[in-house]
Amino acid sequence: MSKKIGLFTGSFDPMTLGHLDLIERASQLFDELLVGIFYNPHKQGLLTLEQRLAVLEKALSHLDNVRVLTAENQLVVEVARREGVTHLVRGLRNASDLEYEASFDFYNRNLAPELETVYLLAKPEYKYVSSSGVRELITFKADFSAYVPDSIAVELEKYLETKQ
Amino acid sequence: MSKKIGLFTGSFDPMTLGHLDLIERASQLFDELLVGIFYNPHKQGLLTLEQRLAVLEKALSHLDNVRVLTAENQLVVEVARREGVTHLVRGLRNASDLEYEASFDFYNRNLAPELETVYLLAKPEYKYVSSSGVRELITFKADFSAYVPDSIAVELEKYLETKQ
Amino acid sequence: MSKKIGLFTGSFDPMTLGHLDLIERASQLFDELLVGIFYNPHKQGLLTLEQRLAVLEKALSHLDNVRVLTAENQLVVEVARREGVTHLVRGLRNASDLEYEASFDFYNRNLAPELETVYLLAKPEYKYVSSSGVRELITFKADFSAYVPDSIAVELEKYLETKQ
Amino acid sequence: MSKKIGLFTGSFDPMTLGHLDLIERASQLFDELLVGIFYNPHKQGLLTLEQRLAVLEKALSHLDNVRVLTAENQLVVEVARREGVTHLVRGLRNASDLEYEASFDFYNRNLAPELETVYLLAKPEYKYVSSSGVRELITFKADFSAYVPDSIAVELEKYLETKQ
Amino acid sequence: MSKKIGLFTGSFDPMTLGHLDLIERASQLFDELLVGIFYNPHKQGLLTLEQRLAVLEKALSHLDNVRVLTAENQLVVEVARREGVTHLVRGLRNASDLEYEASFDFYNRNLAPELETVYLLAKPEYKYVSSSGVRELITFKADFSAYVPDSIAVELEKYLETKQ
Amino acid sequence: MSKKIGLFTGSFDPMTLGHLDLIERASQLFDELLVGIFYNPHKQGLLTLEQRLAVLEKALSHLDNVRVLTAENQLVVEVARREGVTHLVRGLRNASDLEYEASFDFYNRNLAPELETVYLLAKPEYKYVSSSGVRELITFKADFSAYVPDSIAVELEKYLETKQ
Repeated sequence: MSKKIGLFTGSFDPMTLGHLDLIERASQLFDELLVGIFYNPHKQGLLTLEQRLAVLEKALSHLDNVRVLTAENQLVVEVARREGVTHLVRGLRNASDLEYEASFDFYNRNLAPELETVYLLAKPEYKYVSSSGVRELITFKADFSAYVPDSIAVELEKYLETKQ
Repeated sequence: MSKKIGLFTGSFDPMTLGHLDLIERASQLFDELLVGIFYNPHKQGLLTLEQRLAVLEKALSHLDNVRVLTAENQLVVEVARREGVTHLVRGLRNASDLEYEASFDFYNRNLAPELETVYLLAKPEYKYVSSSGVRELITFKADFSAYVPDSIAVELEKYLETKQ
Repeated sequence: MSKKIGLFTGSFDPMTLGHLDLIERASQLFDELLVGIFYNPHKQGLLTLEQRLAVLEKALSHLDNVRVLTAENQLVVEVARREGVTHLVRGLRNASDLEYEASFDFYNRNLAPELETVYLLAKPEYKYVSSSGVRELITFKADFSAYVPDSIAVELEKYLETKQ
Repeated sequence: MSKKIGLFTGSFDPMTLGHLDLIERASQLFDELLVGIFYNPHKQGLLTLEQRLAVLEKALSHLDNVRVLTAENQLVVEVARREGVTHLVRGLRNASDLEYEASFDFYNRNLAPELETVYLLAKPEYKYVSSSGVRELITFKADFSAYVPDSIAVELEKYLETKQ
Repeated sequence: MSKKIGLFTGSFDPMTLGHLDLIERASQLFDELLVGIFYNPHKQGLLTLEQRLAVLEKALSHLDNVRVLTAENQLVVEVARREGVTHLVRGLRNASDLEYEASFDFYNRNLAPELETVYLLAKPEYKYVSSSGVRELITFKADFSAYVPDSIAVELEKYLETKQ
Repeated sequence: MSKKIGLFTGSFDPMTLGHLDLIERASQLFDELLVGIFYNPHKQGLLTLEQRLAVLEKALSHLDNVRVLTAENQLVVEVARREGVTHLVRGLRNASDLEYEASFDFYNRNLAPELETVYLLAKPEYKYVSSSGVRELITFKADFSAYVPDSIAVELEKYLETKQ
């Protein structure tokens, strides 16, 4: 049977425990799992691409078959093709996610019919954890440490200090 | 990497093209895919368990790594454990499906924490194809052949004749 | 331009003010509007087919271009074809209705590609008015007169007395 | 300020940890909280009305301002009026619940305009816990103890033995 | 019976095959169908108002009873009144659309009680086709020709070249 | 029993009849109800903070146990803690609201576990009334008086004149 290569993408601004859980679960489904940081340089974010990359590599260092990559202004399917990806992996939390994903899947299936997409449901405890939620807590200087990987929380605070 | 074994379940009364598409796609994700006909003998159905089994085996004969099994009055997780299944595979069509699946996943995760579940979105053309839809067409003696595998349509009509 | 004939269907057990509002609005969209009472003789209902017919004919007597018909064990599209219907008319109240209607439309479009379906949104004041709601009020002997046409409420009570 | 009396209703067949959590939270909102077991004698259930009552009284004995009552074939608003209730209390888990509750609220507001309804969201950990889920686990002889109050689980098993 | 005039509106930036299908279907429901390009000059778009108009007139030239008009900073109901419109026509794709439409209908019904709105469901094959989807493909220089009218694709590419 | 203090928050730009109805209903549930105008100075609004405050104080002057406060760049839970609030009060209109509220509740419960949240359903007649709807009517110079408190409509028009 040919090698199964998954691709999990996001903007990871910042990475959350929800991302980590999905990546750990997805890594057990594929021979190799690529984690792609998709970055839009025209959109003001919290962390730079370099910072996001450093954070993910540290947080995922315990996963042998996972490799992190970055993409600027590229379609997910283009990156998938270039990297020999067989399956996209997406997280699902609620009905709005499902509407968005069904549309995303529609376009992807036309652009790359050979590429399949599989979905994992967010666990109940991570269902409301999101990068935008963490960013809002940061805006209000509230405690966000319960929503990001332990080792990362320290790093994120360090990054945030340097931003001030 | 250890063997990945998927389990796709349903009552398949009758099997539809939507089922076939999901099974074909799932068979490419796993080393082995089990297809489980879950049968409730206390619930009046269209086809007998034997008929459903015959239909599935014929429709899936082109898939080398797929094996059909049957279960009466058993929990999905029990069958999964007994068969060494690593992942359940479920189809998703709409928001109602998602609510149901999130609940099903919650109970399964408690009963069998080691078992993971992955979801495939129904393709747009199969999004409204369902066993209950086909059964309703049959009730009204309307043409249902567009929604079931070609080879099966003949068989299903034969079975239906013998039922009359 | 050829004649436009609409068909609005339901079980009307009993007819509600929500039905009346939709029928009045639909009657202004078509040259002729057919209102079809679809009756399942195997399903225990509140009113008999004759009672439902009497109620609708009285409640709709002010609408010149509306005609009531009945159907037992027939598909909506069969009746539509036989009566030269150009458009089905359906009411929409909420997301569950939409899921159901999308599926109904899918099968109808395959059975009768020449038949189009148009939808009217229930007005906010009728959004929760339903035959099943009225039936539940009747079960508990509670006042249901606010949800059915005035002239009908009297008739319905008379019918109910004769049922006791 | 006049006394606030809440009413939380259900069929409690059986009571779950989700019910207990909602009742504990609601008891802190009202001067007195009534918990009403609404029982339909024509519907085959798991536990008898007496068993449900015994279970609730034991599980809620630590709540000073909570009183359990039972109702057969009565509308919630009738019981509310008779008991001087000022607010109904309802749990909300998902979009389907919301559709149902909006309809229930519509009829209640017409039947008893003076009665207000307040909603509590199920906590994420109880979002999928339901009586029907527990009943299904019981049907399959699977472990349901994680979803019902500790003290109750023992009692429920005892009751179930006597049913066999 | 008085003349039925429909109005289908959008920003059409750009027009898609989904728009075309809805307009063709709506044109068969009304004596005359107006297609209104509603343009917000303060919102940065892809095509100018003139370009959108040219595209629509070409794509709809086969429909005898359809007329294209444009509106800047006007309410839909104002244009409808001025043009003698009897019915607004709207497309529906999913639950989010339905929520938006119910709100839009509420305000319209208050502003213009004599104006009725009818809805058409997007066909499954067009359910995910949207102007924003096409714009995103254009941003990534991906092939969008499957989602816009054939004759238009050429025109759109020409326009895009002149924009560079 | 200790004092129950509710907090209902919003940006109130502008206050609507929907807000007024929820506040009146919530004021009967608590010993004291705080109404918090949460203001983001970096976000361009219609009314200034002072104007919103004047409008609310006038519209709520008939409610004895209601007090209006303002907050800039503060988390709801911070204000709740400072003011001794026991319960947040939130309005619910539809499934999108519910998704948002479930997420908001998740973060609040972690930030302030002692704080409970209760929800009131918008009445059908206010279900589509929103500040953004009113702002859009104002943009198009359409009549918005049916959606804001009578006494306020005058004031709002006066404010709007001074803005021009």
